[in-house]
Amino acid sequence: MNILDVIEKKKNKKQLSSAEIQFFIDGYVNDTIKDYQASALLMAIRINGLDFEETLNLTKSMLYSGEVIDLHSVEGYKVDKHSTGGIGDKVTLIVAPIVAALGVKVAKLSGRGLGITGGTLDKLEAIDGVSIDLTEQQFIDQVNTIGFAIAGQTQNLVPADKKLYALRDVTGTVDSLPLIASSIMSKKLASGADGMVIDVKYGSGAFCKTMEVAQELAEIMIKIAEGFDKSIVTVLSSMNNPLGRTVGNKNEVKEAYDLLLDPDHADENLLNTIVEVSTYMYEVASKNSHEHSKQAVLDVLHSNLPVEKFEAMIHAQRLSNEQVDINLTFEAKNNIDIPATEAGYVKAIDAETIGHISLELGAGRHTKEDVLDFNAGVELLKVKGDYVEVGDIMMKIYSDSAIDPSFVDKAQNAVEYSSSPVEKLDAKVVLKSKDLL
Amino acid sequence: MNILDVIEKKKNKKQLSSAEIQFFIDGYVNDTIKDYQASALLMAIRINGLDFEETLNLTKSMLYSGEVIDLHSVEGYKVDKHSTGGIGDKVTLIVAPIVAALGVKVAKLSGRGLGITGGTLDKLEAIDGVSIDLTEQQFIDQVNTIGFAIAGQTQNLVPADKKLYALRDVTGTVDSLPLIASSIMSKKLASGADGMVIDVKYGSGAFCKTMEVAQELAEIMIKIAEGFDKSIVTVLSSMNNPLGRTVGNKNEVKEAYDLLLDPDHADENLLNTIVEVSTYMYEVASKNSHEHSKQAVLDVLHSNLPVEKFEAMIHAQRLSNEQVDINLTFEAKNNIDIPATEAGYVKAIDAETIGHISLELGAGRHTKEDVLDFNAGVELLKVKGDYVEVGDIMMKIYSDSAIDPSFVDKAQNAVEYSSSPVEKLDAKVVLKSKDLL
Repeated sequence: MNILDVIEKKKNKKQLSSAEIQFFIDGYVNDTIKDYQASALLMAIRINGLDFEETLNLTKSMLYSGEVIDLHSVEGYKVDKHSTGGIGDKVTLIVAPIVAALGVKVAKLSGRGLGITGGTLDKLEAIDGVSIDLTEQQFIDQVNTIGFAIAGQTQNLVPADKKLYALRDVTGTVDSLPLIASSIMSKKLASGADGMVIDVKYGSGAFCKTMEVAQELAEIMIKIAEGFDKSIVTVLSSMNNPLGRTVGNKNEVKEAYDLLLDPDHADENLLNTIVEVSTYMYEVASKNSHEHSKQAVLDVLHSNLPVEKFEAMIHAQRLSNEQVDINLTFEAKNNIDIPATEAGYVKAIDAETIGHISLELGAGRHTKEDVLDFNAGVELLKVKGDYVEVGDIMMKIYSDSAIDPSFVDKAQNAVEYSSSPVEKLDAKVVLKSKDLL
Repeated sequence: MNILDVIEKKKNKKQLSSAEIQFFIDGYVNDTIKDYQASALLMAIRINGLDFEETLNLTKSMLYSGEVIDLHSVEGYKVDKHSTGGIGDKVTLIVAPIVAALGVKVAKLSGRGLGITGGTLDKLEAIDGVSIDLTEQQFIDQVNTIGFAIAGQTQNLVPADKKLYALRDVTGTVDSLPLIASSIMSKKLASGADGMVIDVKYGSGAFCKTMEVAQELAEIMIKIAEGFDKSIVTVLSSMNNPLGRTVGNKNEVKEAYDLLLDPDHADENLLNTIVEVSTYMYEVASKNSHEHSKQAVLDVLHSNLPVEKFEAMIHAQRLSNEQVDINLTFEAKNNIDIPATEAGYVKAIDAETIGHISLELGAGRHTKEDVLDFNAGVELLKVKGDYVEVGDIMMKIYSDSAIDPSFVDKAQNAVEYSSSPVEKLDAKVVLKSKDLL
């Protein structure tokens, strides 16, 4: 087989066989197919598409390009959770202890942030003394004892996706639904869970700009999961506004921990998302009805069990044997209050803009090598639906570095006002695999 | 400017500005844009196309990516000639001395062969002691004194095309008409001629598989030439059969020299092509009528002048001061006669198959590093339109290496027979720039 023949077929909108896809993935992973050939094929795929059969075969080839985590030694139902990435998305840190408290096992392999999108690993590392580098045995032991663990992917988990994603990022071939679906699903399938809940974000701060695109992506992922006999729920939720009140690292962990300590005073949209995602994770695992699952989540959320699970995880994933200080108060060297420029109801606070500000403040990475300022970030004192007067503090921005004064204007321009009341809660659309219907 | 934004535009079928195209060419030549980014953009161009304005801008950016030959010190009208490449195409070697004999200057920069397509430089080098490495001064002096010179391109002529062509060759992005047109025209324009004749081949042995595609390519090249105020004639001719009676290197030079010595006994299709191309070259230069130009070509062809020009070129381009032996008789170590398998009229001898056989016999290169066997090749004793009996020798194949016996079958399968008479001469279609109409 020859990579030029494979490129030729896709260039001419023909279907690639499973053998051709396997040849491409094998050759690219072992360097016999060059970056410039892979990028030509990726662009042909981006423009001419992949049908579902090709997408499923690509997922399979990527999935088996490296090791597949064996979770058989973990007792009980293993449920995974993934978000397609958003601004202020600290959902994993909250839902994992909640469903673990309900007896469901969550063996979560997470990623780091790049660009405006944060990563759960960075947020966890913002807690002094916590490690995300667990051996496979430590990871499995922790899932068995505490019920959940959050760790970095081993180098050898889906190596094809690592290499392809890095190439797509610099060749304009990220925005292909079959490539995104196979990238996400190959990693989820390699992580060994029995079922999964995927939070598909759409809006200004997300890859999918519209609900329609998010739905299309969700439908592909559901068909892939069905092809592997896995249960899946996709929750489509808006990322036009940041999720919750904080965007950064340490501030997001604090918001997560605070929600577990006192859910009744949490941000409404964040709490709503937490309850939805936790409910579907529990529903996938227990096969109980949605109503029953939701009640179980609400009950456990108002007990102290999720807080205990969260603290047990922090304790288990500590870098040394010393106790980790769970007190998450922190102060950045510099901070600026951003006042409202109009009176009225907050219609939207543009997630993409807030993501960029947070990135520039030091909370995110431009390149993989950048070192994060864990204290940097944005805190929203007002959110969508709130009524404000001119001069009310809308948000605070903070950083350990000097803050560019132009961020005040940028942050103020991110806010859209309305003279009439605005709905506080975002609507969600849920799609499920056939076995759950 | 950012290459990802340029890729993004073309990926979404938007028109690239001249500044964006310039940015791409500059960045790729000086290595700030990587191969894998260039190949992604090339694939987007291959699939989504370039409009004429983009194609003209690309040609300009490539043209000025390196040095442009200054032929002002050559007196008289300078005409260039190019063929899009065919099997047995030795036309340059014959038409250059013919039109030089008519007082037109031909400063011809040629290329080497790759794959089944031969290159004029290789054919010239098949003559013991002849060099294609001329300094720019030697090249210009020779055009002034003898009327023509055939030399290799300097490293710095259209470096963007060299780099892009090498990349296109390994990424499935060769077959794009705007990319082909800008590649050919940037080189022709950089070569400094006042007018040009381009032989656009179509058929099994050519890049353009059909006349329609050849015509589309010709029309783009004509518009580019008009954009640079250059006169151009494109001659569209069939490459379903090899051109003439020989395919190889030394045998092709011999056929070229023999045609000049005795045009009345030359292969009819080759002679017809020679007269057509020479006529248009002379017509572009002299602005005489087609009939007058053709008569001038026929007259000079039957004089000894073209032979003298050819020999003067061989003498001038010799490697040392010793006389080059113009006696082009040669003998390969091994040869096999291929008999006809049917009785009837020869309908076609597939050019692509003969090209592959010649390549495998040693007359061509699989990679740029391959060393040629100048004696290797194919000689056609029968051609399209000839009547043969079973067992008549159709062709001879020869090589200095051992000949794979399977080539007999292959060669025989290349021949198509007909029970009814077949037209000997190929039709030609001619398209001209507006100034010549």
